[in-house]
Amino acid sequence: MGLAETLELPLLPGDLGRVEDALAGAVRHPDRFLGDVASHLVRAGGKRIRPTLTLCAAYAATGADRAAAEDAVTGAVAVELVHLGSLYHDDVIDEAETRRGVPSVNARWSNIVAILAGDYLLARASALAASLGAPVAALLAATIGELCRGQVLELQHLFDVARSEEDYASAIEGKTATLFATACRVGGMVSAADEPTLDALTRFGTHLGLGYQIVDDCLDLTATDDALGKPAGQDLVEGIYTLPVIYALADDSGLAERLGGPLDSQRLAEVRQRAAANGAVEAALAVAADHATKAAEALAGADTLDSGVCDSLRRLVEGLVDRQS
Amino acid sequence: MGLAETLELPLLPGDLGRVEDALAGAVRHPDRFLGDVASHLVRAGGKRIRPTLTLCAAYAATGADRAAAEDAVTGAVAVELVHLGSLYHDDVIDEAETRRGVPSVNARWSNIVAILAGDYLLARASALAASLGAPVAALLAATIGELCRGQVLELQHLFDVARSEEDYASAIEGKTATLFATACRVGGMVSAADEPTLDALTRFGTHLGLGYQIVDDCLDLTATDDALGKPAGQDLVEGIYTLPVIYALADDSGLAERLGGPLDSQRLAEVRQRAAANGAVEAALAVAADHATKAAEALAGADTLDSGVCDSLRRLVEGLVDRQS
Repeated sequence: MGLAETLELPLLPGDLGRVEDALAGAVRHPDRFLGDVASHLVRAGGKRIRPTLTLCAAYAATGADRAAAEDAVTGAVAVELVHLGSLYHDDVIDEAETRRGVPSVNARWSNIVAILAGDYLLARASALAASLGAPVAALLAATIGELCRGQVLELQHLFDVARSEEDYASAIEGKTATLFATACRVGGMVSAADEPTLDALTRFGTHLGLGYQIVDDCLDLTATDDALGKPAGQDLVEGIYTLPVIYALADDSGLAERLGGPLDSQRLAEVRQRAAANGAVEAALAVAADHATKAAEALAGADTLDSGVCDSLRRLVEGLVDRQS
Repeated sequence: MGLAETLELPLLPGDLGRVEDALAGAVRHPDRFLGDVASHLVRAGGKRIRPTLTLCAAYAATGADRAAAEDAVTGAVAVELVHLGSLYHDDVIDEAETRRGVPSVNARWSNIVAILAGDYLLARASALAASLGAPVAALLAATIGELCRGQVLELQHLFDVARSEEDYASAIEGKTATLFATACRVGGMVSAADEPTLDALTRFGTHLGLGYQIVDDCLDLTATDDALGKPAGQDLVEGIYTLPVIYALADDSGLAERLGGPLDSQRLAEVRQRAAANGAVEAALAVAADHATKAAEALAGADTLDSGVCDSLRRLVEGLVDRQS
């Protein structure tokens, strides 16, 4: 079941279709090569979580029975383009071969092309944000800066068996939660929501993003390659020690000796098993559940928001935090 | 003699000092590592041509006797950060070891860090542009998009001995001239210049940028390593066939056989000599001179601009187009 069905908001599928059309339009370019490269991942599809959040935030602020305003669709496209642009650069950084079932841009063309096309998508996102006014443009720019900060922080602790929970939390706030928060806030901004409402939407997005990323990081330890649609355990191989691994390291004094450097497939399987066995995953999932609760509370505190849409958003949180892949 | 002295504008050195301080402030970051990486090229200095253009455009629009408004300084910093961010990514693309006499970011840290820090500088530029209002934010975003277009177009014609003059012109307009034009236009925008004046400043910047890049490309063929402060002939080695090479190819039927692929140092010396000998460089410099004339004419057509500042800008054009390094 897709996100849109989970939410049970009748106008959402149609508005997501408008987002899809606008996304395709935003990356069209008279230079056919640049247009091809820029639209590569747009065409590959995706869950469109961030645009869904922007649309839902707009519904929440204006009422569930109103199709999203054009500005909400534009905002949804801008946040998705930030996500896609960062994926182009991530795939260069990770030397990824595939993404969303198709060859990555770096693999199909080159790192050079992926860097420039990623820059182009970020620039298109900024242009759309500017069309929504200076406050949205400023928010999007700050969000891209936060994405960079989060990723740079993560890099500083690669293969660091002493990585702290605080360091992890700060990194995922930058690399994931800030864009979730911005997706929600932009939906409110284009709907002229007041400051307390915008802050509630932002808190909702932040906690949802934190919970989402922690679950993602747990699945890297516990899910199969088939369920994930990509090789499991990649974080461990790349030296990104996430919350369940940090917890496992605290409880299993022998684990640190096995981490801290490259892992062959046998060692990887062993480490995944040990980390998943000693309760660390459950402890990390409890933190994710706590963020899900806080996300729901953020909505409950904003009485200006449509209660039906808020119910849908709470279902979305449950769906994203309880997911198995 | 530096740019500021050439221009003989008494307030310029002081305002460029303000730009320098604001640049340093713009890349400061609580994460010490990110702050170090982001400020690496800022600290290495540079000619600051683009900030100089923004300040001069502001003087031209408001009068030579007025220190630049804070917004002009902010605009100058934003355009320089776009330039610096693109250099971070260029150096990854070119696998450059040094930049401005210091190790490049990719060489000192890694490609990954250079990609993320380049993104961060572009995001900081966008944030500053947004602080100047939506029109400046939109212009800067479009400019970054044009930079990408120009570079992607150049990539498509690497080692292409059939590269056309039109293709070259379109690529350098994107990768160089658009940011020169934006630097000038932003100076006018923050000074509330009217549309015809903004268009004149933009035309001035475009033609200056085109002339500047063509001269740069000629120097790659004619100057010594010492004069350039970097290895001459790099464009030929990387397969970027610039205007003088395109002209040389048209007049020297044997040259195409020598180009189209990698060059060893002996072959490089021979190609540089042949391209420089048959009048191709002079023909390209004549095109640069034509752009210099058009830049001067653009200013002459705008009677709202301060005539003393316009005289200074014409000297700047001459200095940049007549330069030997």
